[in-house]
Amino acid sequence: MPTTARWAATLTLTATAVCGPLLGSAHAAPSLGPSGLYAPSALVLTMGHGNSAATVTPERAVTLNCAPTASGTHPAATQACAELRGAGGDLDALTVRDGAVCTKQFDPVVVTVDGVWQGKRVSYERTFANECVKNSYGMTVFTF
Amino acid sequence: MPTTARWAATLTLTATAVCGPLLGSAHAAPSLGPSGLYAPSALVLTMGHGNSAATVTPERAVTLNCAPTASGTHPAATQACAELRGAGGDLDALTVRDGAVCTKQFDPVVVTVDGVWQGKRVSYERTFANECVKNSYGMTVFTF
Repeated sequence: MPTTARWAATLTLTATAVCGPLLGSAHAAPSLGPSGLYAPSALVLTMGHGNSAATVTPERAVTLNCAPTASGTHPAATQACAELRGAGGDLDALTVRDGAVCTKQFDPVVVTVDGVWQGKRVSYERTFANECVKNSYGMTVFTF
Repeated sequence: MPTTARWAATLTLTATAVCGPLLGSAHAAPSLGPSGLYAPSALVLTMGHGNSAATVTPERAVTLNCAPTASGTHPAATQACAELRGAGGDLDALTVRDGAVCTKQFDPVVVTVDGVWQGKRVSYERTFANECVKNSYGMTVFTF
């Protein structure tokens, strides 16, 4: 192999090895099979300070796709999808973690989750006493 | 510079040059600045066959993030964000394209859009006579 070809091969392999893991799931384009091989799971999660989604301005909003692969702007998409699957998609099943420590300060935050989970529409709202309490429920889903 | 160092430098630069454009927007993690430098825009779009979202099973669902950069499983995220910005976020402003040709077959599809657009909640539903008609409205937003 001439030197230039070796260089080219080396650089290509390097790029693949370096980029492959980084590109990962975020670039796996979900596409429904001809007979609907999987049901779509795509959600938007928001959080804002206040008592009720009806009056709260969303301060943060992230997306979470769980089919066919995990992706989205949720900071822990893969773990959040696994957690939701483990809970059978039941957001109320995400309960406070053992050992979580938060103050009792009342500064309520509202989380909303809208979209589709395994082909079924989701429209969910839950209020926590403060942001620390929000993050103490479940492992990753509400931590964004 | 010793040869090994030159190699290392070359490979790093190559990886950066190759991965940079690929990683692009999909990996730009949205993070709200300390004073809220931008309002979040994150949406889930669904489509299904039928007359009304209340009774239709979502067959496809995609996510679309437009702040701070375009990403998501929407097949044309960048263009869809630009189109939504151009319409001021008004989904009803997306009208039929000149020259679009569709049959009059009545096989209605419902599109829903939920989430947040520039910090305001969105809950939208629109029914089209058939899928071709759906794709003839606007340029890219409803084409998924």
